[in-house]
Amino acid sequence: MNISPLQKERAKYEPKLPESLKGAVKVIEGERTESVADQKEVSELFPNTYGMPIITFEKGDSRSAKEPLNVGVILSGGQAPGGHNVISGIFDGIKKVNPESKLYGFLGGPAGLIDHKYRELTAEIVDEYRNTGGFDIIGSGRGKLEEESQFDKVLEIAKELNLNALIIIGGDDSNTNASVLAEYYLSKNAGVQVIGCPKTIDGDLKNEMIEASFGFDTATKVYSELIGNIQRDANSAKKYWHFIKLMGRSASHIGLECALKTQPNIAIISEEVADKQQTLEDIVDYVADIIIKRSENGDDFGVALIPEGLIEFIPEMKILISELNDLLAEGTKTEKEFKMLRKSQRLNWVSGRLTSESAKVFNSLPEGIATQLTLDRDPHGNVQVSLIETEKLLGEMVTEKLKGLKKKKKFSGKFSTQYHFFGYEGRCAAPSNFDADYCYSLGYTASVLVSEGKTGYMSSVRNLTKSADKWIAGGVPVTMMLNMERRHGDMKPVIQKALVKLDGAPFKYFVSQRDKWALSTNYVYPGPIQYFGPSEVCDPPTETLKYEQS
Amino acid sequence: MNISPLQKERAKYEPKLPESLKGAVKVIEGERTESVADQKEVSELFPNTYGMPIITFEKGDSRSAKEPLNVGVILSGGQAPGGHNVISGIFDGIKKVNPESKLYGFLGGPAGLIDHKYRELTAEIVDEYRNTGGFDIIGSGRGKLEEESQFDKVLEIAKELNLNALIIIGGDDSNTNASVLAEYYLSKNAGVQVIGCPKTIDGDLKNEMIEASFGFDTATKVYSELIGNIQRDANSAKKYWHFIKLMGRSASHIGLECALKTQPNIAIISEEVADKQQTLEDIVDYVADIIIKRSENGDDFGVALIPEGLIEFIPEMKILISELNDLLAEGTKTEKEFKMLRKSQRLNWVSGRLTSESAKVFNSLPEGIATQLTLDRDPHGNVQVSLIETEKLLGEMVTEKLKGLKKKKKFSGKFSTQYHFFGYEGRCAAPSNFDADYCYSLGYTASVLVSEGKTGYMSSVRNLTKSADKWIAGGVPVTMMLNMERRHGDMKPVIQKALVKLDGAPFKYFVSQRDKWALSTNYVYPGPIQYFGPSEVCDPPTETLKYEQS
Repeated sequence: MNISPLQKERAKYEPKLPESLKGAVKVIEGERTESVADQKEVSELFPNTYGMPIITFEKGDSRSAKEPLNVGVILSGGQAPGGHNVISGIFDGIKKVNPESKLYGFLGGPAGLIDHKYRELTAEIVDEYRNTGGFDIIGSGRGKLEEESQFDKVLEIAKELNLNALIIIGGDDSNTNASVLAEYYLSKNAGVQVIGCPKTIDGDLKNEMIEASFGFDTATKVYSELIGNIQRDANSAKKYWHFIKLMGRSASHIGLECALKTQPNIAIISEEVADKQQTLEDIVDYVADIIIKRSENGDDFGVALIPEGLIEFIPEMKILISELNDLLAEGTKTEKEFKMLRKSQRLNWVSGRLTSESAKVFNSLPEGIATQLTLDRDPHGNVQVSLIETEKLLGEMVTEKLKGLKKKKKFSGKFSTQYHFFGYEGRCAAPSNFDADYCYSLGYTASVLVSEGKTGYMSSVRNLTKSADKWIAGGVPVTMMLNMERRHGDMKPVIQKALVKLDGAPFKYFVSQRDKWALSTNYVYPGPIQYFGPSEVCDPPTETLKYEQS
Repeated sequence: MNISPLQKERAKYEPKLPESLKGAVKVIEGERTESVADQKEVSELFPNTYGMPIITFEKGDSRSAKEPLNVGVILSGGQAPGGHNVISGIFDGIKKVNPESKLYGFLGGPAGLIDHKYRELTAEIVDEYRNTGGFDIIGSGRGKLEEESQFDKVLEIAKELNLNALIIIGGDDSNTNASVLAEYYLSKNAGVQVIGCPKTIDGDLKNEMIEASFGFDTATKVYSELIGNIQRDANSAKKYWHFIKLMGRSASHIGLECALKTQPNIAIISEEVADKQQTLEDIVDYVADIIIKRSENGDDFGVALIPEGLIEFIPEMKILISELNDLLAEGTKTEKEFKMLRKSQRLNWVSGRLTSESAKVFNSLPEGIATQLTLDRDPHGNVQVSLIETEKLLGEMVTEKLKGLKKKKKFSGKFSTQYHFFGYEGRCAAPSNFDADYCYSLGYTASVLVSEGKTGYMSSVRNLTKSADKWIAGGVPVTMMLNMERRHGDMKPVIQKALVKLDGAPFKYFVSQRDKWALSTNYVYPGPIQYFGPSEVCDPPTETLKYEQS
């Protein structure tokens, strides 16, 4: 394998561990816990794993020799920087327990577990992947592990390999499923523990005990590098407005973090749009207003950040999308009729079948976007919101708005746009020092939870704005994070998705600054992630964590 | 100003200079030079500056005290990393000659010179911009400095500020104009020298004496970081083909350099397409063939690099574009007729007015691309080729091709695409160590050329694969790089644009490897530019230079 000079040097990096994990570990158990909501329903669904205590690790006395551990691991869902370090942390942790311990990586996500596709992760393999980005050591997948028949299938291979535990590295859904699996195996006395690890660049898997999901730090640093570079270009050429869409599914954590790092002229936060019940027109007006004011100062340029999930948070768009999903649901009479139409007839046809409110919104959209909303459906027939080019939607609507104002002599500047979408650029970056350390610690923590016989826990490492040796490692019962939500018509226990809190410190700081950032040009240029050099450059955690913990 | 931790640390970096520039400088003059072609015409147009010798600097004895120098500088055209370091090199150079020397920055490119808009660049201002990206210290612009009336206007401000020299930091066109200006001032005995500096991320301003234009190193490192991250994602998720368009105007230097750095499955080189007279269908077939073969190996994913200028190099597309430019030229009867049509009628109307060959090509294009080709025209009525989404053009045509093959049972894999365009992300990145040193040396060299009374020279720093102290600094007469080319109907002296040489070592190495890279997955992940840490990581020059000079 031909590896880059950076990879070669970076392979030597030794991730930092919390003090408590450096030698023997003492397990401190806290009080009985409750789920965040719906305690009655959740406790009934999880009779064996409900109410377990929070676990904290402390430095212990000498650790007695233990039996070897056999552990299976999967990477589930979208890539996030640091996944390989979770695996190397698990590997080193179980080898410390006993050098005869074995780690099996199941290939391509949950499907690998169900289909019994795996490879043993030896020292040679693990070493090749330390401190690298990507999930390519075993691949990932979006398959779901949620049926009892699947659980039984997984148990077969667990028995065959004599596994003590499965470690599931994934987002909120995967960890929800891990907790169901843990409960199921316990109810069957199957003798297989299940431990989760909080992964997602989107930052929406967090709560008091899980301060951050891994990958968020690195991904937002990559996006902020690029946003900073584009801001510098905007401020040099002084002729473009750059509309930048950022990955992150529903939540706007990524957009908020990048805004705090780069101080752009505009950053839309979906959660605020929903809270204020803003219409698409409100947002267009807000953006146009800043463009006009900057133009009056002689600044016909700027940068606007748009969260990927925005349109689902605009109440009128949400209704429109839901009507479109009904109208074009697979196999319906209307869907068949739609498909028979010529392309040029489709938009009119759709518009005529919407409520008058939704038809008005639909007709106000640029043609390309309206067309996208009627195509690109997922296997359930729903619009794939992430494929909608929201940055162009806003840019084109603002262009129209400004044209109108120009005719009325209310705008006399120039307005040219450039569009960008950042997502895949950051999901597989080599982890920052923070994520390299955090992921390794999460993996190592998971190995201790396994060796302590725990199940239904998520690996937890807290106190993250402090130096790594002061981090607090332990486990949180997944049931503590559950509440009941409607999914495909049924009430299900799920981990509450963490959206941006409008009364949280990061958002409040952003609000206190954004009017200044809008009009004067206060860009910050973070530059690329640095792995060597001064700690102030290489090691800082996210702005979000800093404001949350200050 | 709120600056990032990296900017703060990076401000301390002291760019490295060639040994010859560290103290007093001795000027070595070489033989009389000739232009690369059209010697008779060029020599007649440049009676005063033709044939001047190449200049090389060597370490000299003590430097005698000199009069202060007054120098004006502009940044011309698109941004490139390191422009601020050229300026700090000039600044330090003329201050070394005499601390009373003054540097004036003209604002917004050539327009600033013509309109007499400038600011004095003091130590305080220059220090703020050392080792930073962007051109925001004085801005840039795409204005042209080519009329004698403009030259006279510039001379007014030069006299007013008592300028010894103008330094023009720009690409091939700007340096061509600099040579015309130098000749003009010399013919008038105006007493103002003109020196050029070779800037462009595109890498197309180079020859024996100018080994690289500045910014190419940094920009290609940023793009390669992102390509590497995307490759890692492709190889982890194993479900997408990523089509990545790269900036770089006509030449494919950026695409080739990024391919050498990252080893993608496909990299199209425009110059080869032109040389082999490939059709669009040939290219689609080539791409589809690799996709099919990878799919047969179980790899339904990959990465393809597409140069921005590709379609102009496909002979049939070139003809089509030229026909469209005639048909839709501003103010023509046909253009007016076209504009009166409804959108749905336009493509048919256009197709009916093309030659049958071009109509066939036009009709084979995806609708969105065909529409783009009839819109987006520059002020001369020409298609703006850089706005054409060539990555989508190829992706969509390949999709159609594979659909057809699937029906014939000749392809059974999955094919999903993601599209990216990288350009603005890299033009204003903070310069790599290489560009920081190279730019500073170019600026310092320019200052010595000024203090030695030279005009019509381009600042030249060579031997670039060696360590900076061994670099060879000096000046090259711009006339040496000129040849005659037709521009807007007239023959003009211009700097020959350097395209990728198909018999050059970088391309030949690429050709020797690309079949292997296509089928097996040999991705290299260069990671982000590092400014601190091991020299092997921080300091290497481009692969292009390494192969050219090895």
